[in-house]
Amino acid sequence: MDIVSPDGFLYSVAKAGIKYPDRYDIALIYSKRPAQVAGFFTTNQIKAAPVKICMKRIRSGQAQALILNSGNANACTGKKGIEDALKVTDYIAEKLAINKEYVYPLSTGVIGMPLPVERIMKAVDELVNSLGNAQPLQVAEAIMTTDTFPKLTYRQIETASPVTILGICKGAGMICPNMATMLCTILTDAKISSDLMKEALRDAVAQSFNSITVDGDMSTNDTVLMLANGESEIKIERKTNLWKQFREVLTDLCIELSKMIVKDGEGATKFVSVTVKGAKTTQDARRVARAVANSLLVKTALYGGDPNWGRVIAAVGYSGVPVKEEKIEIYINDICLFRGLPTMREDELKESLKQREIEILINLNLGKGHTTIFTTDLSEDYVRINSAYRT
Amino acid sequence: MDIVSPDGFLYSVAKAGIKYPDRYDIALIYSKRPAQVAGFFTTNQIKAAPVKICMKRIRSGQAQALILNSGNANACTGKKGIEDALKVTDYIAEKLAINKEYVYPLSTGVIGMPLPVERIMKAVDELVNSLGNAQPLQVAEAIMTTDTFPKLTYRQIETASPVTILGICKGAGMICPNMATMLCTILTDAKISSDLMKEALRDAVAQSFNSITVDGDMSTNDTVLMLANGESEIKIERKTNLWKQFREVLTDLCIELSKMIVKDGEGATKFVSVTVKGAKTTQDARRVARAVANSLLVKTALYGGDPNWGRVIAAVGYSGVPVKEEKIEIYINDICLFRGLPTMREDELKESLKQREIEILINLNLGKGHTTIFTTDLSEDYVRINSAYRT
Repeated sequence: MDIVSPDGFLYSVAKAGIKYPDRYDIALIYSKRPAQVAGFFTTNQIKAAPVKICMKRIRSGQAQALILNSGNANACTGKKGIEDALKVTDYIAEKLAINKEYVYPLSTGVIGMPLPVERIMKAVDELVNSLGNAQPLQVAEAIMTTDTFPKLTYRQIETASPVTILGICKGAGMICPNMATMLCTILTDAKISSDLMKEALRDAVAQSFNSITVDGDMSTNDTVLMLANGESEIKIERKTNLWKQFREVLTDLCIELSKMIVKDGEGATKFVSVTVKGAKTTQDARRVARAVANSLLVKTALYGGDPNWGRVIAAVGYSGVPVKEEKIEIYINDICLFRGLPTMREDELKESLKQREIEILINLNLGKGHTTIFTTDLSEDYVRINSAYRT
Repeated sequence: MDIVSPDGFLYSVAKAGIKYPDRYDIALIYSKRPAQVAGFFTTNQIKAAPVKICMKRIRSGQAQALILNSGNANACTGKKGIEDALKVTDYIAEKLAINKEYVYPLSTGVIGMPLPVERIMKAVDELVNSLGNAQPLQVAEAIMTTDTFPKLTYRQIETASPVTILGICKGAGMICPNMATMLCTILTDAKISSDLMKEALRDAVAQSFNSITVDGDMSTNDTVLMLANGESEIKIERKTNLWKQFREVLTDLCIELSKMIVKDGEGATKFVSVTVKGAKTTQDARRVARAVANSLLVKTALYGGDPNWGRVIAAVGYSGVPVKEEKIEIYINDICLFRGLPTMREDELKESLKQREIEILINLNLGKGHTTIFTTDLSEDYVRINSAYRT
């Protein structure tokens, strides 16, 4: 698929040698005019330096350049980490002759290593000079860590002139309840205020990045940043059809990106959706879905094609949500395995577990709360990849 | 080590063919006189039939026989599951000519399969007829599932006549915060009321079985049952030296058993203790310790010998407990890796991670709350074992 970039954004990538020599590991995204910005960040209390800087700068509602790197998270690096990141962003602002508060850093990689500032500064010269020479695909590639494929997609809304929304993200292991080790930048040429954009983005993130889990860990660096530079001159205002359409399209784009992340879960062989309905509240539904989606025993059973729905109901039981055993229904791939009692249909399930996509449906029959979470199975490869991540 | 049984208890084992033919899978423990009983059970809301029966019967404070089986958990089996278990316990009571309310069932194995009652009833005849022919070791073997070694130990308190406490348990995968897939029976010939015994047992369980975690899952069948038959005629009363000694010895015994469980964690190659101190409360310390101990990324790093303390601090950060990054200290095997900032001593750690025992110490420097949790690393073998548990 050819990726269409929204108007007014330029890209460049470079090899800074942050962790490995000779790979593209740094990218610059530049908007010709200052853009409106909205964002969401990790809820981990240990936040990386770039996250702290973004959280501060985003209060202005304005952004013009994003500098993204892989190989080093610049997390747990104290004051020095902040200073290092600021050295880089200040230098970029100077080179681009823009407001230095409009430059946002995004980092991913190993925790607790100082940022190799000198090497990065050298790369910045190249990035600024070559702006416009790279495509979004190359940006997506530059921010990959254990990702096995670049993740990006776009949507267009047909209006007087088309409005384009582009999403670029990365994320593989450590993907969990709240957007872990996930960097995502969404760029649009729509004209929309940062407040309105934040509203749309909040919903989109809740239904996408915050509904996926790979290993339950939550990173120090998660960031979703969305920029709207208005180049299309199509204005989006509340309570219009366009506003409704914009929200839908944005959510749809975020769901597509988050599914890519799950599909690229480290060592994953299966894509699993866990739907909980009949919960008293949405909150309850989410707790149950997460307990099931994060259960190692459920994940390994799915990997092995073992029709062990007992592990699903055990996870429901320890989720902390009040349930009634006799009311619970469990379906896997539309096969009812438990309806107050076992249905003894496991042999049917066994065949169907060979599919690459697995749907788990749990009905608590207690109310109207419901949710769907996407996750993966857990394979030996997950262990192999994560036990050797740095060594 | 020769295992000493407390006076007045008899044991037998049989091959009921519950899951596999030709293996000892059922055991009977009988006390010559009715014993005082105390117990703790899974906090999973989905409780197996035998757990429900035990929870009801324990209110009387009395027990005289325990029937334990592996291969079938009798969980999620509805009314039929209860009826099946009662058929077995009633039959045992009849055969032993004891109060039927004094017979307690304990089951472990697959969830959601009906108990093969006929086969079990046949085995019961043999169990009753051969009471006294088995040793505690054989009971420990009969209740093993994926355990690779039988787990039992004993303690003696020297008094006028010795008081003996024997512990027999099983548990491998699914061992988590609250005693998951863990069956434990503790037998003593001390004379002690069930209330007093419950007090001692509560403390002992908190410091042992409830402080271990293998995969974070919690089972439907966890049971700790303690019987005191008074055969030693040594009476234990509150506020005596003996009471103090009894508590200490019981806790010590439970810690030894729980360490055995962790060492036998499915696919485990390392024994890991996670100590958190300087937390505002014990509760906080436990939350942080559990987040670290259950983190897949921490567990796989330890397996791979990767000195990746960044994953430890990330888990601290998402534990939900308020922390201050600049105050946190992290030590692994006494090597300080983080004290507000990285210490860059990872190369030293690398060598020390080759040990089979790993100690993680986290000081939050915010208060006096502390705790220690025992866990394991996570290996490819864990995945292999659990993806093929039943198939």
